[in-house]
Amino acid sequence: MVSTISNTVAEHQLNIVTMREYVDQEHGRFFVRVVCSGEPHNAEEFAHDLSHRLPSNADIVINPSRKKKIAVLVTKEHHCLADILVRHYFDTLQADVVSVIGNYDNLAEFVDKFDIPFHLVSHENKSKGEFEKELATVLNQYEVDYIVLAKFMRILSPDFVQQFENKLINIHHSFLPAFIGANPYKQAQERGVKIIGATAHFVTNDLDEGPIITQDIKKIDHSYDLHRMKTAGKEIEKSVLSRAIQLLVEDRVMLNGNKTIVYKS
Amino acid sequence: MVSTISNTVAEHQLNIVTMREYVDQEHGRFFVRVVCSGEPHNAEEFAHDLSHRLPSNADIVINPSRKKKIAVLVTKEHHCLADILVRHYFDTLQADVVSVIGNYDNLAEFVDKFDIPFHLVSHENKSKGEFEKELATVLNQYEVDYIVLAKFMRILSPDFVQQFENKLINIHHSFLPAFIGANPYKQAQERGVKIIGATAHFVTNDLDEGPIITQDIKKIDHSYDLHRMKTAGKEIEKSVLSRAIQLLVEDRVMLNGNKTIVYKS
Amino acid sequence: MVSTISNTVAEHQLNIVTMREYVDQEHGRFFVRVVCSGEPHNAEEFAHDLSHRLPSNADIVINPSRKKKIAVLVTKEHHCLADILVRHYFDTLQADVVSVIGNYDNLAEFVDKFDIPFHLVSHENKSKGEFEKELATVLNQYEVDYIVLAKFMRILSPDFVQQFENKLINIHHSFLPAFIGANPYKQAQERGVKIIGATAHFVTNDLDEGPIITQDIKKIDHSYDLHRMKTAGKEIEKSVLSRAIQLLVEDRVMLNGNKTIVYKS
Amino acid sequence: MVSTISNTVAEHQLNIVTMREYVDQEHGRFFVRVVCSGEPHNAEEFAHDLSHRLPSNADIVINPSRKKKIAVLVTKEHHCLADILVRHYFDTLQADVVSVIGNYDNLAEFVDKFDIPFHLVSHENKSKGEFEKELATVLNQYEVDYIVLAKFMRILSPDFVQQFENKLINIHHSFLPAFIGANPYKQAQERGVKIIGATAHFVTNDLDEGPIITQDIKKIDHSYDLHRMKTAGKEIEKSVLSRAIQLLVEDRVMLNGNKTIVYKS
Repeated sequence: MVSTISNTVAEHQLNIVTMREYVDQEHGRFFVRVVCSGEPHNAEEFAHDLSHRLPSNADIVINPSRKKKIAVLVTKEHHCLADILVRHYFDTLQADVVSVIGNYDNLAEFVDKFDIPFHLVSHENKSKGEFEKELATVLNQYEVDYIVLAKFMRILSPDFVQQFENKLINIHHSFLPAFIGANPYKQAQERGVKIIGATAHFVTNDLDEGPIITQDIKKIDHSYDLHRMKTAGKEIEKSVLSRAIQLLVEDRVMLNGNKTIVYKS
Repeated sequence: MVSTISNTVAEHQLNIVTMREYVDQEHGRFFVRVVCSGEPHNAEEFAHDLSHRLPSNADIVINPSRKKKIAVLVTKEHHCLADILVRHYFDTLQADVVSVIGNYDNLAEFVDKFDIPFHLVSHENKSKGEFEKELATVLNQYEVDYIVLAKFMRILSPDFVQQFENKLINIHHSFLPAFIGANPYKQAQERGVKIIGATAHFVTNDLDEGPIITQDIKKIDHSYDLHRMKTAGKEIEKSVLSRAIQLLVEDRVMLNGNKTIVYKS
Repeated sequence: MVSTISNTVAEHQLNIVTMREYVDQEHGRFFVRVVCSGEPHNAEEFAHDLSHRLPSNADIVINPSRKKKIAVLVTKEHHCLADILVRHYFDTLQADVVSVIGNYDNLAEFVDKFDIPFHLVSHENKSKGEFEKELATVLNQYEVDYIVLAKFMRILSPDFVQQFENKLINIHHSFLPAFIGANPYKQAQERGVKIIGATAHFVTNDLDEGPIITQDIKKIDHSYDLHRMKTAGKEIEKSVLSRAIQLLVEDRVMLNGNKTIVYKS
Repeated sequence: MVSTISNTVAEHQLNIVTMREYVDQEHGRFFVRVVCSGEPHNAEEFAHDLSHRLPSNADIVINPSRKKKIAVLVTKEHHCLADILVRHYFDTLQADVVSVIGNYDNLAEFVDKFDIPFHLVSHENKSKGEFEKELATVLNQYEVDYIVLAKFMRILSPDFVQQFENKLINIHHSFLPAFIGANPYKQAQERGVKIIGATAHFVTNDLDEGPIITQDIKKIDHSYDLHRMKTAGKEIEKSVLSRAIQLLVEDRVMLNGNKTIVYKS
């Protein structure tokens, strides 16, 4: 497999910059991420050659080097959103934030500073179906690669999730699978844990059960009350979510069933 | 309260080395750890004075500076036990390991090297009641301060736990409360987590639900299969358990309901 | 000492919330941080009583609970500044950023978004003395508690440092004392380190030698070239500097010669 | 290059398990680590084919899967040695400790427990040349792959180092390049650092300047006096050194000038 790929790459006058394999021996799956430099004289022919030389059940994704487009969904909390917008503004995100959608308007003023359209899609006085239809309408105005739930506090229906399959990224404010669901810091505080964490993951139908992209933690002690735990947690949440976005937009993440393969280097 | 304590300490010709308070505002509880140097001219009188001057519902524990005694319970895995015995041998544990009890004999030879009595208490062909009665009989030969479950893989009954209340310390091979119960690494591997951990905690009636003393984690990636996860996990387990023992024998841990207060410095 | 303080506090109808001592046995110094709640019926009398009852060489600082004022000095890099301004904007900094001063104007537009005055004080075509005089003139317009060098790339003279003694906070982009001076990431890259770090410290006359407030690190590997090292480093720099500011404005940092005492909890 | 290697591997009926490249663009060097499963029908022919097909300046190392042999050099401190011997005893080191050499005899009794020969080579009343000659004589009795300096407190001469080039591994009790040389904890304590560390590295002629294999740190605070700093440091030292040994004996480390390439996964 490695021979086939490297030969095909060479034939098309491309150079392999990095090549990383992963074998999932339990399920008998082979994954490889190849980063090439150079310009294929014929991109279509390259894809065609690859697909004909590799096994017929191979899943080939060719990602040209381009900036990904991102929409951000928020509720009231600012910390993840602000981190993303600052990176966007100074062009260190390696992606474009094309739109922010909130179910409240309290972050609109902040988003305006960065010349990014803010859409208020309130969930109030609506069925979940109506709310999600409005969300989808706004999202479909933009051809986004990823929809980042940056502390978006509404649970999305399976229908909605399916519509944007593998595009929805969430930050959960706990070290999953600990403290699934609502109020994880309250749960953590009551349990008396000595470490808190945050988890960035793909959204699937099961709440907080989607493939984990990245996680991080902070050590705490008994002196952390709920407020201080939340404050500390926000620092982890924003860095974990930004890290996940970075990994995604650099095409470093592959899905393997309900898990991810993350090629950090 | 702080005045009362510091005045009483001064009257008895003791010096306060460190004094640390913690206020649990939720439950309206006040905790203070005072380390004194010097010798009270009359220890009983000191305790008497303190208890009469402090509120009648105050829980006063006076720990003279002495080496604690520890018994270690094991099954088949060696890594936590070996770490403890090496520290004991080189006198860096600040405690004495007075006995090791195993429900298998495969660690007996190793324990023998350190001139510590090894007791085989097999669980086979016995009811849990009989097994625990034998365990208790051996443990009661030694007046131990703590009983360390160093990868002891039998679940203990509420009766047994009550008999050795606040003395039983366990190392759980996950970042609690994630992956409670059996095979946490298998659960972790299936969930595709990016961080694994270990938790040292007091044992209470509810499995893996006792007060947490300390926890630590290690970042992993998709390339960790179950075996490698377990190998990496053992490193965390042994350091977390040794750390918990150190905190306990230095009287740095207080219980506050189902939580601990840990005075690290 | 503890008695004297706690008695005086009680007499003035204040309650001790936390009290933390530290004894520097090497130099025979005793430090204590006391957090009180309540309002002294007479703040002056309280200070007077304390100073008369404590040893005459005691250094007593009474910090009323108020928002500190901060000026930020920058050159061209935005990451630390942006993190500070976002916290200021959303009122999570527990301090007010009253002014930003840059020796280039490229961050002016960003600062404007947050309605904070930006002062351009160029170092070009000036002696260091003239440059610093201008800086001081601007700074003296504001009564600031701290001057944060958020990637300010000019070395300040002993005169300037003395003028703002114990107010100047710097973020050094290495794990001090490794890689003192210029281009620490280049030095780190050439040395082949496996961990990079950042250090927030008070500025004293000796370059990068002032009391360290806080440090943090990130593990890296051989695949980090200089660019990636710098990018990763910026994440540490911004979180370490923000953490240091938070500790300072909450009056959690004391100076002990060339070291700090940091009361985290 | 990747094609050539993968084709040659395939021709010899081997399977690539993992393949990791690293390009040092600064020096124009290409590194690749290939793990193969299977048995070459002719190992010599395989090496011959590889060397003829790859550029003539390629440095090809073929490591058959076998346990490496290790000698450990110690002075008086036990913590690193004990960790290594326990791993050896329980066969989790993936290497054989064939000999321990000490310039004092106080660890002899402990080594005896593990049935490993202990050689006392005292440095007293000898020139450095004589001492090292004796060391070399003992070491040459064993065909070792690595010589681990597990807190061996004698500085070795360039001659000795050259004799065992790329085989000498040291644990330095600081986060290099901070605190090179003697008494790093004392230096750290005086500087008031908030993090301490340890570094495992190859030994070269320049003291503490050899290629770094791995490093780790622990956060500390002002309350750590020299003793507590050393105690905490030992925990890092032993885990860093054991980690470095594990990486080496699994052939995961390559030298690139004065740096290492470490293939962790």
